[in-house]
Amino acid sequence: MYPAPIRHARPANVLVLGAGNFGSCLADHLGDSGHAVRLWSRRAAFAPHFNRLHRNPDYLKDHHFSRNIQAVGPDLPDAQMLKEMDVLLFSIPTQCVRDTLTKLRPSLDEEAPPLLIFVNKGIEIGTQALTLEIIADTLGPQMAQLATFISGPSFAVEVVRRQPTSVSVASLSSVEAQKASDLFHQPWFRCYTGTDPVGLELAGAMKNIYAIAAGMAEGLGFDNNTRSSLITRGLAEMTRIGVCYGANPLTFLGLAGVGDLFLTCSSSASRNYTVGYRMGKGESLETIMGTLGSVAEGVATAKGMKQIIDDLGVDAPIATGIYEGLYEGKDIHQAVRELMSRPASHEIDLPQKSAGPVHELMHKLGLDESHQF
Amino acid sequence: MYPAPIRHARPANVLVLGAGNFGSCLADHLGDSGHAVRLWSRRAAFAPHFNRLHRNPDYLKDHHFSRNIQAVGPDLPDAQMLKEMDVLLFSIPTQCVRDTLTKLRPSLDEEAPPLLIFVNKGIEIGTQALTLEIIADTLGPQMAQLATFISGPSFAVEVVRRQPTSVSVASLSSVEAQKASDLFHQPWFRCYTGTDPVGLELAGAMKNIYAIAAGMAEGLGFDNNTRSSLITRGLAEMTRIGVCYGANPLTFLGLAGVGDLFLTCSSSASRNYTVGYRMGKGESLETIMGTLGSVAEGVATAKGMKQIIDDLGVDAPIATGIYEGLYEGKDIHQAVRELMSRPASHEIDLPQKSAGPVHELMHKLGLDESHQF
Repeated sequence: MYPAPIRHARPANVLVLGAGNFGSCLADHLGDSGHAVRLWSRRAAFAPHFNRLHRNPDYLKDHHFSRNIQAVGPDLPDAQMLKEMDVLLFSIPTQCVRDTLTKLRPSLDEEAPPLLIFVNKGIEIGTQALTLEIIADTLGPQMAQLATFISGPSFAVEVVRRQPTSVSVASLSSVEAQKASDLFHQPWFRCYTGTDPVGLELAGAMKNIYAIAAGMAEGLGFDNNTRSSLITRGLAEMTRIGVCYGANPLTFLGLAGVGDLFLTCSSSASRNYTVGYRMGKGESLETIMGTLGSVAEGVATAKGMKQIIDDLGVDAPIATGIYEGLYEGKDIHQAVRELMSRPASHEIDLPQKSAGPVHELMHKLGLDESHQF
Repeated sequence: MYPAPIRHARPANVLVLGAGNFGSCLADHLGDSGHAVRLWSRRAAFAPHFNRLHRNPDYLKDHHFSRNIQAVGPDLPDAQMLKEMDVLLFSIPTQCVRDTLTKLRPSLDEEAPPLLIFVNKGIEIGTQALTLEIIADTLGPQMAQLATFISGPSFAVEVVRRQPTSVSVASLSSVEAQKASDLFHQPWFRCYTGTDPVGLELAGAMKNIYAIAAGMAEGLGFDNNTRSSLITRGLAEMTRIGVCYGANPLTFLGLAGVGDLFLTCSSSASRNYTVGYRMGKGESLETIMGTLGSVAEGVATAKGMKQIIDDLGVDAPIATGIYEGLYEGKDIHQAVRELMSRPASHEIDLPQKSAGPVHELMHKLGLDESHQF
């Protein structure tokens, strides 16, 4: 029933860094769209295996990947390969971005930079920096202004099956956002552009905290009304935090906001949801983290966000409750009781924009501090 | 684990009109909170049955209702009973509101009116009027200014089990909204007040259209990514329509907007979702409506909204596609193809407020036409 695929007159040369679940899924989508894709993994065994079988040994194991992908690694691509690339797509953990960009910088042609796309979600531990800030620190303000971010409700396993998926594509440069949209857009992978990468990054990080809360509610035995209200109040809370930070409130109404929040909070396939669910059932965080087998990003994000929330002085009872449950040993029944004992209030209580963090970030990027998304 | 219930120093006398699923659930909540509740049904057999057994023969059949409820009917309560009431809560179908209010008007004391609360959702067929307008037409502008509306993610069966539930409470009069919140608020039934009844009413009506769309997507075999993006794009669409109409966009970010949309679109318990699902599986609307056994409000609302959408000239491809599928025999595979073939676009495309309908409504209510919610 699908409309015909979009074919590109001039396919792009794309280097995808990171062959995890989401990176390899996006590499597959771009290969499937006719682009020439290199897929880099830091693991030595990956490239020979993938190039022989066109399968990823660790993720999406049932999927036969596009023939337009060539795996590379384990060394970081050199200046020669980078020069040939139209697009660098980073799908590496947030905690690795600073180091990777620092190593790549000498090989990048700053006069004719490739399109830079980032799909990692999270906050750098210690600095509480968004990826936009890490890019400014490592590649300089010009490159950060051009960087583009993609986020939205997109389970990898569904993307590779061409299940209709829609994402937000945001950059301070609307020209670069449009380039990324042109690269990715297909009838079954729809791109919606915007100019608020800060809101997109904050929403992508924070949704994992609310997924823990939603899982916890189910683990405690709460039902649909509670989950819906938790998601809605979580959305109001993340919007309030985002506006205080300096983001556009409407970003949280979009695919990277409510769309991804909805997906993450309504699926037991989400690792963050699982952490919350098992805590709701009475397991300790140590037990869960010891047996989960993979990282739940929301656990680290809850810590970084707590710092940001305190710095902003914004009211965020859900994120604060999750932080206290994860890191201060607070009994989660007590946390729920406190949430329920809060007095009735007005529904929409967006703060006046203080926007301190965005002022500093825009200053770092060489832009007007009063920049409005 | 619950905090202690709130007990009222002076319980209110409440008349609930309509003993359907939601009306009887709210009557139970208010009785459970210590108020003195009368529950009116137009069916002659209801009051004797309920008063003997404290059970509703048609809805929430497993539930033993609060002893603080006394059922009345089938005649509409007279002026004497109305005079004793602090609160009238209307939980009757939108199509019955005009007639019921017209009949009640002569018995209402306009000098000391009770708190008027409405929980019906929908648009009057033929006039496309919101309930706020029907109230102005029948009870006059003063009463409409005081009318209060409650909406939010609240399955009745969960409310009577004291599952934590949160709702929006909106009125042009913030004093009346606060009174309604004070009446209803409990730790497990949380009220959030606002001043945009128009947005709350529009969201409550439109969510049922998007629930049909979400059901249809599942019936067609689409998965989580598609559902999340459909809900998000539906939210963007209903916000766009609401802003054109004159509502506040932030209302759609609240419990009556995204909260109820999320609940309705993610539950196969929703009648609207079921209609869409069965259409997605290939059944005709006639067959479905003939066997569903109860009304799916979204089917009628899709027709009324189409008129509003055309009058506003606003872009609403999802609601339009659902209308064409329901009323013009459009093949739903073709509708999906067309939705997927739309070009990539900007994510946030709120129109400049035209707000024509709200200007007219405010004029009818004797308020400044440029009233902002």
